[in-house]
Amino acid sequence: MKKFVNDPKMYVPDMLKGLALANPDTLRYVPKYNLIMRAGGPNPNKVSIIQGSGSGHEPAHVMTVGKGMLDAACPGDVFAAPPMDYVYETTKLMASPKGVLLLVNNYTGDRMAFEMAQEMAESDGITVKTLFIDDDVAVQDSTWTVGRRGVAGNFFVMKAVGAASEAGASLDELVRIGEKVDSVTRTMGIALTSCTPPAKGSPLFDLGEDEIEVGVGIHGEPGRRRAKLTTADEMTDEMLDAVVNDLPFVEGDRVALMINGLGGTPISELYILYGHAHDELTRRGITVGRSYVGEYCTSLDMAGASLTLVRLDDEIEGLLAAPAEIAAHVF
Amino acid sequence: MKKFVNDPKMYVPDMLKGLALANPDTLRYVPKYNLIMRAGGPNPNKVSIIQGSGSGHEPAHVMTVGKGMLDAACPGDVFAAPPMDYVYETTKLMASPKGVLLLVNNYTGDRMAFEMAQEMAESDGITVKTLFIDDDVAVQDSTWTVGRRGVAGNFFVMKAVGAASEAGASLDELVRIGEKVDSVTRTMGIALTSCTPPAKGSPLFDLGEDEIEVGVGIHGEPGRRRAKLTTADEMTDEMLDAVVNDLPFVEGDRVALMINGLGGTPISELYILYGHAHDELTRRGITVGRSYVGEYCTSLDMAGASLTLVRLDDEIEGLLAAPAEIAAHVF
Repeated sequence: MKKFVNDPKMYVPDMLKGLALANPDTLRYVPKYNLIMRAGGPNPNKVSIIQGSGSGHEPAHVMTVGKGMLDAACPGDVFAAPPMDYVYETTKLMASPKGVLLLVNNYTGDRMAFEMAQEMAESDGITVKTLFIDDDVAVQDSTWTVGRRGVAGNFFVMKAVGAASEAGASLDELVRIGEKVDSVTRTMGIALTSCTPPAKGSPLFDLGEDEIEVGVGIHGEPGRRRAKLTTADEMTDEMLDAVVNDLPFVEGDRVALMINGLGGTPISELYILYGHAHDELTRRGITVGRSYVGEYCTSLDMAGASLTLVRLDDEIEGLLAAPAEIAAHVF
Repeated sequence: MKKFVNDPKMYVPDMLKGLALANPDTLRYVPKYNLIMRAGGPNPNKVSIIQGSGSGHEPAHVMTVGKGMLDAACPGDVFAAPPMDYVYETTKLMASPKGVLLLVNNYTGDRMAFEMAQEMAESDGITVKTLFIDDDVAVQDSTWTVGRRGVAGNFFVMKAVGAASEAGASLDELVRIGEKVDSVTRTMGIALTSCTPPAKGSPLFDLGEDEIEVGVGIHGEPGRRRAKLTTADEMTDEMLDAVVNDLPFVEGDRVALMINGLGGTPISELYILYGHAHDELTRRGITVGRSYVGEYCTSLDMAGASLTLVRLDDEIEGLLAAPAEIAAHVF
């Protein structure tokens, strides 16, 4: 394992400590509950939005805390759901009179932690709603999932409800918006390599020198099939066909197009995928209204990418265009 | 080689095409000269700033074209200087009555291309100045360099002169600012793995399973020495000591601290390096005034990182804090 790591057990705390030190004006790290929150704490004039999941998907979600996106993130250890009591404590810390919205990618462990935390917080008199994200078209059930998995498309749900909450939307309104965005968001990924969890110290699964995993999950879960490595264009087509045919997206649609890097793939390659996807969408009469190329939801150091489409309407496009100030990228 | 690539010869054009398609309102791609420019062309009220270098360092420099940073980027093929006539054509296209500033990382091939292009443009009556960046403390001369190499610290020069040019600074003033920033900027990198140029199809150099290259160049050039892989904290100390002792940075200094990923290292690991570097600087009485963690200047898919410090004064800090709107990261 060739990584910048000290004690693998300290991988997540070391990262969170660095993240907070780099953003002293905007973020606070609470080691006791492994959480990252906005420095100012809950804002009584807006719904607090919290997302949690296993770590190893950075910038999701700890680096997307900030104005216009999350109010707090509650990460677990690498690829592990956060402990239920940490989610509960985060919810209490971020309680707002307008309520708390919990965003959860659809994995069984995460659902369990967040649903129990919601019950506990509600019995304390906090108004809480939970919204599950399941944008991955690759497989119906998977290693750790009943139903579809939540992957990089969670960005669009976070961004939309984050923008609406800054504008004062109610908790019910945020649930409506979040569910709407999730319902028109579809993703599919391809892994070129495995990833190496620090505590394991070796690759999570084996892929041959000329093999790819089509429809890979963000924890290295199996996808639809193993295939031979082929050209960037052909791999783009594979992801695009799966995504377009699922909703389906049709001629006349206006979409957001995201090419998300899985951690080990350079941004140069992501733009190669983007260019072909844009051409193919245009050929199908689908207009790309907004573009996202970079790392949004990763799998540690996995080489690979995912492609996400969101069907836009005026409401969604307006929320996606709203400003956000987050730590993920500083220029 | 496991990459998203079509014909390796088309790696750079395919990427640039995607970049321009993803940013139709702000960027224009001119295939004939392999250049990326602001969609609006040269602005007669500001000096035009152009940076060029080999490709493979993305987001540098093609993804840092935009308001507050570059007016155009003139990339070569992967790890190859741009052709002199392309630099000349870019300079002509971007000619402004206020002049043109060429930013060049200090490599012999790049210097040659830019210096000849400057002469040709000057004989056309265009006012041009060239500024060389050489922030890498690792080695004095190297494979393709006389003197020190220009690496990730070039970001700070781009950002400072970009901000000043938006505010209307003259060409001479930009040269003064750029030289000043370069003179207080120091960088050192460590490679955990090699990188694989698409046209070569195999790793550029060999590193043993437990070996690192201390002081690696951004084209895989040798650094100071091979060493054994050790902890994140120890590798941070190695980079920090080299950088701090070089200028030197001393107690009472206020600095910008950048941890730059070399392409294959996830951002989670970069924050681990950041946290320890911040602690160590604090211990030495050096204040971190601005923080940058992410990918700024990469080496394709190399796993590794570099650490940059910039000694801040009010002028530099103000320029670094100015807004910029670039394609590199969209949130």
